[in-house]
Amino acid sequence: MAMEIARTWAEDAKRRVGERVRLKGWVHTVRELGKLVFVVLRDRTGTVQCKIKGQKELAKGLDEETAVELIGAVVEDPRAPDGVEVDVEEVRILAKPVEPPPLQINRSLDVIGMRLETILDHRALSLRHPEIGSVFKVRAELIWAFREFLRQQGFLEVQTPKIVAAGTEGGTALFPVQYFERTAYLAQSPQFYKQMLVGAGYERVFEVGPVYRAEEHNTTRHLNEYISLDYEMGFIDSFYEITQLETELLRFMMEHVARACPRELEIYKAEVPEVPKSIPHLRLDEAVQILKERYDKRCEGDLDPEGEKLLCEYAKARWGSEFVFVTHYPRAKRPMYAMPNEEDPTLTNSFDLLFRGLEITTGGQRIHDYHMLVESIRSRGLDPKDFEFYLEIFKYGMPPHGGLAIGAERLTAQLLGLPNVRQASFFPRDRHRLVP
Amino acid sequence: MAMEIARTWAEDAKRRVGERVRLKGWVHTVRELGKLVFVVLRDRTGTVQCKIKGQKELAKGLDEETAVELIGAVVEDPRAPDGVEVDVEEVRILAKPVEPPPLQINRSLDVIGMRLETILDHRALSLRHPEIGSVFKVRAELIWAFREFLRQQGFLEVQTPKIVAAGTEGGTALFPVQYFERTAYLAQSPQFYKQMLVGAGYERVFEVGPVYRAEEHNTTRHLNEYISLDYEMGFIDSFYEITQLETELLRFMMEHVARACPRELEIYKAEVPEVPKSIPHLRLDEAVQILKERYDKRCEGDLDPEGEKLLCEYAKARWGSEFVFVTHYPRAKRPMYAMPNEEDPTLTNSFDLLFRGLEITTGGQRIHDYHMLVESIRSRGLDPKDFEFYLEIFKYGMPPHGGLAIGAERLTAQLLGLPNVRQASFFPRDRHRLVP
Repeated sequence: MAMEIARTWAEDAKRRVGERVRLKGWVHTVRELGKLVFVVLRDRTGTVQCKIKGQKELAKGLDEETAVELIGAVVEDPRAPDGVEVDVEEVRILAKPVEPPPLQINRSLDVIGMRLETILDHRALSLRHPEIGSVFKVRAELIWAFREFLRQQGFLEVQTPKIVAAGTEGGTALFPVQYFERTAYLAQSPQFYKQMLVGAGYERVFEVGPVYRAEEHNTTRHLNEYISLDYEMGFIDSFYEITQLETELLRFMMEHVARACPRELEIYKAEVPEVPKSIPHLRLDEAVQILKERYDKRCEGDLDPEGEKLLCEYAKARWGSEFVFVTHYPRAKRPMYAMPNEEDPTLTNSFDLLFRGLEITTGGQRIHDYHMLVESIRSRGLDPKDFEFYLEIFKYGMPPHGGLAIGAERLTAQLLGLPNVRQASFFPRDRHRLVP
Repeated sequence: MAMEIARTWAEDAKRRVGERVRLKGWVHTVRELGKLVFVVLRDRTGTVQCKIKGQKELAKGLDEETAVELIGAVVEDPRAPDGVEVDVEEVRILAKPVEPPPLQINRSLDVIGMRLETILDHRALSLRHPEIGSVFKVRAELIWAFREFLRQQGFLEVQTPKIVAAGTEGGTALFPVQYFERTAYLAQSPQFYKQMLVGAGYERVFEVGPVYRAEEHNTTRHLNEYISLDYEMGFIDSFYEITQLETELLRFMMEHVARACPRELEIYKAEVPEVPKSIPHLRLDEAVQILKERYDKRCEGDLDPEGEKLLCEYAKARWGSEFVFVTHYPRAKRPMYAMPNEEDPTLTNSFDLLFRGLEITTGGQRIHDYHMLVESIRSRGLDPKDFEFYLEIFKYGMPPHGGLAIGAERLTAQLLGLPNVRQASFFPRDRHRLVP
């Protein structure tokens, strides 16, 4: 099946009536009906009904989840799920289960009920379940579209080190690594490096890579290792260029995933959001005011998860947008590299993007002036000497720039309506989970 | 310039004669000639000559490497490098260097001479040098083509954890990570996880991600953190499917890079190799015999760097191929998951690929039978209990499979003829280098 059937069996089958095919996959279900044995074979493209007539010995050992090769002729049969099935002539068993699987792959999750912990404990096996594994086809297409759009916009794909000498935010929430005789850390973000590469002359760079947060909280929205979709762009006139590019990027990604993953979206009953021509922008102080006045909800200087949900409700009702930018966070809430706002220097030219009640992006304009950056580092009680490797390029004509990061797991989870971000991570790492 | 000029100035300029343009970039060179000041502006797409006539005050502060915006009209001038130049009307300085740069960006590396250590110490700045920074356009196109080809072949892109509980090879050369109260490790390769995802029903997966080797040796061919291009495919009939797919993949990658990077290849005087329809395969014992007989070179059970070089000379002379597969390594030289050869079980269905004298790929068929794999783990003195997270999926119908990994830095370096693999890493990590 792997090599022989294009996208899905159903799409391709009618054309193949009369052909003799060699299908490879897993035994999804087996059902005896008098002299017939129906075997539904499953591969990465879907399922196909196969029929063993008479020669019941062929069906011997075809337990569920056996890896198998079936050879036979494609025949029309109006009773078959796709109107076609395979009359099996030969069976070759590739690998038999050594014991019955602890999870049932061929029944709806609603029917069998399964805790997320169980699913994650048996991660590789659970991914065979179409309701579980399809998440990652959507995720892969979102990531493909992220890259494709940015390539078209002249961005260079980069890969920056994950073993670093110092943290982006100055030392909190870092995982230490024993790097020969020294202690190093896992990068919290490619922040410093993507900025340095803008200054290195590439002007526009993006990266898809892992980031690490040694945060203790174990919530449905946090992972200690996740995939960050980063971009950074130089020679900007204002930070609205960054939010505008993200708007176009998200539209491209959503339109692509709607085209590429209709079956997967259907499994999750997911609606692909319409990305407005211009996503509404709210200043944080406006947002806090709205929450207080309309929802009697108090947020002090930042939004909490409930605040994010309510603000998305508001944006949906007022502008019909499932996305909303919250801008102008105070300097105290942002890292030392955040660009202060020209009109009110207690604020920054920064933003978060909320989507269906969850923050999926943090971004902003960065300080590009060397002296201002050194001053900002000092004002946080940090020592510019510790950041020399980062600061150097700022001495030699660093253009105005900014960028953002999108959490791949959060974006996927929000799009598909998954209640826990772990469901969009192949092998999640959290406060307690280090295996599989 | 960033937004306004397509691929290169030279390609686009003639069409723009008469237009008023807004160019952004860095001051590459400044030259006074009587009443004229010539400013060559550099951005990620190349350079363009700009001319300031009369108003010399416009040229004030335009030191080399200043980030600047120039506004002016495109005019024809047969004396200009591209036959066109920009008559500057307005200058806006975006960021002035605070001191002269320690490296000269606008002169040939041959002329200024520069040690690799100096280049890497000032990495972001040195990347502005076209002879240094162009490496990464080639690298990005190679990686793009790797993904594109595999997508076309039905592979799913995956991202697997880099924080792991156990090493692939059983505990050597691992960097320890303090993961809350436990000790974890940085992944040496995505080996276990990519196999598990084949068994998870995706059948064919690939990953572009960092891998970590805590090896002490500091050579021109080793990095402690590098980008591994991995794929793994299920339902194979023999391990030659893996080498055949790599052959087609490499042909696709090389043809793509020849089309996408003519200017960059020219900078390095790099010839794109022709990938033969079938890359020659030599068994390791044959290779050792050839080295002994033809070159009086003794290799015991494995090839050393000199052996790899000589074998590539041999393949080039005999078959006209710049690539050669070396196959059938002994079990003792391969990890516990390597599939023993059917005819001689002291050997494995494994291979390395050599390219221009250097190993750029290791791959092979893997054991898919659960009991055989448990036995193989035990035979290495390892405890199958430590590998339960990996072994589980092998209990439930693991298909025959195999795959490989290509080192992105090595492939790039070999293609461009770079003497040190560090030159193909943005921010290399080695025995002594952790910054920038």
